[in-house]
Amino acid sequence: MTDRKNIAVIGAGYWGPNLARNFRNSNDWNLAAICDLDIDRARRVAESVGGAPIMTSLADVLSDPLIDAIAIATPAGTHHRIVMAALDAGKHVIVEKPLADSRAAGREMVSRAAERGLVLMADHTYCYTPAVLKIRELISEGFLGDILFVDSVRINLGLIQPDVDVFWDLAPHDLSIMDFVLPGGLDVTSVSAHGADPLQTGKACVGYLAMPLAGGAMAHVHVNWLSPTKIRQMVIGGTKRTLVWDDLNPQQRVSVYDRGVDIAEVSKATTTDARSAHISYRLGDTWAPALAEGEALAGVATEFAAAIREGRPARTDGEAGLRVLSVLEAANESLNGFGAPQQTTTRVAA
Amino acid sequence: MTDRKNIAVIGAGYWGPNLARNFRNSNDWNLAAICDLDIDRARRVAESVGGAPIMTSLADVLSDPLIDAIAIATPAGTHHRIVMAALDAGKHVIVEKPLADSRAAGREMVSRAAERGLVLMADHTYCYTPAVLKIRELISEGFLGDILFVDSVRINLGLIQPDVDVFWDLAPHDLSIMDFVLPGGLDVTSVSAHGADPLQTGKACVGYLAMPLAGGAMAHVHVNWLSPTKIRQMVIGGTKRTLVWDDLNPQQRVSVYDRGVDIAEVSKATTTDARSAHISYRLGDTWAPALAEGEALAGVATEFAAAIREGRPARTDGEAGLRVLSVLEAANESLNGFGAPQQTTTRVAA
Amino acid sequence: MTDRKNIAVIGAGYWGPNLARNFRNSNDWNLAAICDLDIDRARRVAESVGGAPIMTSLADVLSDPLIDAIAIATPAGTHHRIVMAALDAGKHVIVEKPLADSRAAGREMVSRAAERGLVLMADHTYCYTPAVLKIRELISEGFLGDILFVDSVRINLGLIQPDVDVFWDLAPHDLSIMDFVLPGGLDVTSVSAHGADPLQTGKACVGYLAMPLAGGAMAHVHVNWLSPTKIRQMVIGGTKRTLVWDDLNPQQRVSVYDRGVDIAEVSKATTTDARSAHISYRLGDTWAPALAEGEALAGVATEFAAAIREGRPARTDGEAGLRVLSVLEAANESLNGFGAPQQTTTRVAA
Amino acid sequence: MTDRKNIAVIGAGYWGPNLARNFRNSNDWNLAAICDLDIDRARRVAESVGGAPIMTSLADVLSDPLIDAIAIATPAGTHHRIVMAALDAGKHVIVEKPLADSRAAGREMVSRAAERGLVLMADHTYCYTPAVLKIRELISEGFLGDILFVDSVRINLGLIQPDVDVFWDLAPHDLSIMDFVLPGGLDVTSVSAHGADPLQTGKACVGYLAMPLAGGAMAHVHVNWLSPTKIRQMVIGGTKRTLVWDDLNPQQRVSVYDRGVDIAEVSKATTTDARSAHISYRLGDTWAPALAEGEALAGVATEFAAAIREGRPARTDGEAGLRVLSVLEAANESLNGFGAPQQTTTRVAA
Repeated sequence: MTDRKNIAVIGAGYWGPNLARNFRNSNDWNLAAICDLDIDRARRVAESVGGAPIMTSLADVLSDPLIDAIAIATPAGTHHRIVMAALDAGKHVIVEKPLADSRAAGREMVSRAAERGLVLMADHTYCYTPAVLKIRELISEGFLGDILFVDSVRINLGLIQPDVDVFWDLAPHDLSIMDFVLPGGLDVTSVSAHGADPLQTGKACVGYLAMPLAGGAMAHVHVNWLSPTKIRQMVIGGTKRTLVWDDLNPQQRVSVYDRGVDIAEVSKATTTDARSAHISYRLGDTWAPALAEGEALAGVATEFAAAIREGRPARTDGEAGLRVLSVLEAANESLNGFGAPQQTTTRVAA
Repeated sequence: MTDRKNIAVIGAGYWGPNLARNFRNSNDWNLAAICDLDIDRARRVAESVGGAPIMTSLADVLSDPLIDAIAIATPAGTHHRIVMAALDAGKHVIVEKPLADSRAAGREMVSRAAERGLVLMADHTYCYTPAVLKIRELISEGFLGDILFVDSVRINLGLIQPDVDVFWDLAPHDLSIMDFVLPGGLDVTSVSAHGADPLQTGKACVGYLAMPLAGGAMAHVHVNWLSPTKIRQMVIGGTKRTLVWDDLNPQQRVSVYDRGVDIAEVSKATTTDARSAHISYRLGDTWAPALAEGEALAGVATEFAAAIREGRPARTDGEAGLRVLSVLEAANESLNGFGAPQQTTTRVAA
Repeated sequence: MTDRKNIAVIGAGYWGPNLARNFRNSNDWNLAAICDLDIDRARRVAESVGGAPIMTSLADVLSDPLIDAIAIATPAGTHHRIVMAALDAGKHVIVEKPLADSRAAGREMVSRAAERGLVLMADHTYCYTPAVLKIRELISEGFLGDILFVDSVRINLGLIQPDVDVFWDLAPHDLSIMDFVLPGGLDVTSVSAHGADPLQTGKACVGYLAMPLAGGAMAHVHVNWLSPTKIRQMVIGGTKRTLVWDDLNPQQRVSVYDRGVDIAEVSKATTTDARSAHISYRLGDTWAPALAEGEALAGVATEFAAAIREGRPARTDGEAGLRVLSVLEAANESLNGFGAPQQTTTRVAA
Repeated sequence: MTDRKNIAVIGAGYWGPNLARNFRNSNDWNLAAICDLDIDRARRVAESVGGAPIMTSLADVLSDPLIDAIAIATPAGTHHRIVMAALDAGKHVIVEKPLADSRAAGREMVSRAAERGLVLMADHTYCYTPAVLKIRELISEGFLGDILFVDSVRINLGLIQPDVDVFWDLAPHDLSIMDFVLPGGLDVTSVSAHGADPLQTGKACVGYLAMPLAGGAMAHVHVNWLSPTKIRQMVIGGTKRTLVWDDLNPQQRVSVYDRGVDIAEVSKATTTDARSAHISYRLGDTWAPALAEGEALAGVATEFAAAIREGRPARTDGEAGLRVLSVLEAANESLNGFGAPQQTTTRVAA
């Protein structure tokens, strides 16, 4: 098919096979190469998707004029180098989360892509699940009203990573989802991070992020590698309704509660009675929208192709990845300050 | 029965009827009076427990030489005045949580009780539930090993209180339970509090408390009045096992997971491989102890009587109440500092 | 209040105190007496509701001209005798489930009440819970469409009753609810009962009831005293929607699923393709109606008073109780026939 | 590898790809062919497993002397013909459930395999899940005591099959599992089947099977294509403990409850008091064994190879498949008799 773009997957480790399989199955893409320094690893991935060319040299991939785009699934510390080289070679790029291992590196990548007029997409996979797409739609339609709080919990008995702490390993999921569903994206000006390393592994294994939002709202993330039970739940409270996303309940992942507190009027009344007179409670119905099944990465592949074709930023573009990095980097600094709030900004101009 | 002590319940509001009923049904106590300024309220409570003398004057209660003890279920702001008067009148005292509305007030109460040789007990009711008693027992026997983290969530669509924020309303439960089950009690030196008041009610409705514990461990509390779903869950991670208490699952409130991360040796090795070589994962069985049914307040009544009889502090004594107040007051200060960690101490000498 | 009716509760065992408390708290009733052969038992119940006259002689109760109605909470074997005497004494009667211990006895009671022009109500308590009232309303409005199947499970570790088997102990709940919510009531012409008594207690401890309904539909009940876990769930499948009532999930007791199988046309086509061409699947939203909280027995008391006042049958009248007995008696006969289907009828004329 | 056996998969429809993938990944097998009349379908399956020879003629497969065994994943109506031909060609055979579409056909297959000295294995996949293997082990060790009842529920919104009813589609799972875990296998002498076809599809869509077991015990199966919620749960009650297998709860699939009813002595005492004096209740702990993860079909492939190598019947052999067929066929007859119990036997000699 002549209108398919050619893509090479760089990195045949944990995530690469998933990318390879989805680009392989996509009508928008031709899987042109699997590239890994370890040729056996590359070969195994190629075989697992029914065959694909394998390569071991990134330079060879980038110098191939037939290749339109590359998908990077290597460790975060290598993203900057590979992305910059790929952009300089004129390739569109999609990068596994996190975008880079520092905000400065991420910012350079975003700038370079803009200069070259190329698409730089963050592979924020969760954003393309039917549940998150539905949440974004509901919020953007005003169904929840103004957002009052977002509380995300992502805990499990997880592998202690050799190179990153629990914040950098897990929180990009929560942060990228918040960025995707909140109107205007994740707009954070201060981050407090509290981490614990009770096993003395040299990095936080239990982590909490508190982020004030505009208008008195609050976003909070709890990530944990040491929990014996698995919880993946996000509660998004709004002035009209509150939504609970329980990703481990396939029969009812998203529930919208028409329950909450109504304040008739923002009152500065000083007496208790005056104030409480304006508060009432709604105990309405619960509604759980039907969600399509479907693999999120297929949506990622589709969106990447569409962004290139239409010459527009992807829905989870480099800027989105950069906002996530801004929070993570501020979290680092807060951790170094024993939890002191760290000023930051996720605004583009930063 | 001549060996029963006489007790008067002060306050016939929300909690008073529960106290009255349990002291009435106790073999250790004779319910000698229900006292409330509002005589109708006092009468209704008296009737609901099958009849009891009613009084409207605290002074009359305190001057009655037959009354041995008083149970206080009035707003926190009145505790100091009533407790001090009761102690000065030679009565043993049990006080609804929180012990007082400030640490200074609480400290005076504790000192006065010590001076008078009277029992001052904090009504930390949850500590006397079969679940919490079992958790305390398991931890004290070393079944969980050293404690790595404690994460407590207590969220619900709750009444916005006129006089207190969500921390002072709900967190005393979590803090008093932690104090009860942790070996050596709640030993906190720093508190970071993050609150949100997105409805502009004048007080935090969503709150988070992060408290580093000794040895790199961490305690964390999430309290929330705005959640449409109700969660009451505490996870206590230990070096040997991890315990999950789900108070809303009557069929399996307490689960102990023989799952976790084992570090063979606290290694300062700098290379990744060396470090990860020492990490292994256990994926063992889950065990849920059978728990007796039984109303916690009955255990409170029994413990109060036993402490008086045996001339010893109650298991949840004034000091325990004071430790909770120390955290709450530090939380206030942290809130005023936009989440900056606030030094404190829950040690007795403080 | 002069317009309150006077009621006596007969039987101070397990259920009597609940009846006494609810009639006591009702604006429609004056609790005129608690009657039990065991005067101490009667006294304890009277005290528990804040005082009420106690009596030990049924004859005295029935001869008291001020008493308008009686509520019977004695063993099922005594219902016939007490109800007949009460009706003959001109009293309205409400009887705990099951209405009687045989269909013949129940029929006599229903006839006698009709002759005397008195209300005979079955205390089918569950029918007055907010959940069941809502289910009845949804079905009667056609929200589920035609009913395809009803599957009810009521299992728990239960007390093995000395006098009745698990069918007579538990299934009256399921059957009375089905009778209440199904349009036209429980219309059963055949019952197959399968029971097991693996502990040789002399009666079935595990039981299943299969009852074909009109139009090819099916009702089924599973009752079990030997299950370590508690399940109380009813699924009601309809042509338009399917409802699941999970009585042990207080956060979402009733869920309505817009999911199901659509048959475009009732086809007798003999080929597979023709037939399957007419089948499609709906995977729509889930909706959980908000339910009021409220004790069901309060609704029972209100309905009993209203039926008397308005001179109409109660919503769960003697006929309803008789339909339940018809099924239970047919179940007995099926059990005796090793599960062979037993013809019966729940029609009034029977 | 010279010690691998060669296997051909017959049928490239729903289940064939799973068989192909697992035989492909097995160290015991060489995937020698995928055979389907539809060459495109065969090719797609071959590609999905990284390439394999494809064939369209069963005769060619069976005449290939290098092929040791065949795995059959074609419609049940074709099993008899293919299996007989394969056995006659000297091939070992594994057959997807149900073994055949009638008991007579199954019996011929079992006899022929015995005559030829070949392995005939039923692909009762569920039996090789970690959960079911653990259940079998616990029961065989006497951990549950004597079995009192087995209750299995398998309901979901399922595809209405063109050729089989809900019993033949789903109950083979429940029956084969019961056969696998019960000591001595499924020993049933009577089957009552109740089915409903409320959508007039021409076959039962809702079904119940009641099967008395020896000693007053009972096995029961509920299968349903019309349920909007998915339940896959089996409760196995024993004299010592009761086990609940909830296959949709990955965090705790198998729970063993030390709860139940103890009968001190099998008493024929006629008075209520005497009898109830011998009943007591245990409310002990719950225990959930850790279960390995692992695809059941990998265990199927291993077991098939081991049975051939060791010249012994497979753990789920043709006899096991035949016992399942005996129940299904008796269920058919019971359905034709409107639920009348149908005598049968699952004993080998039958």
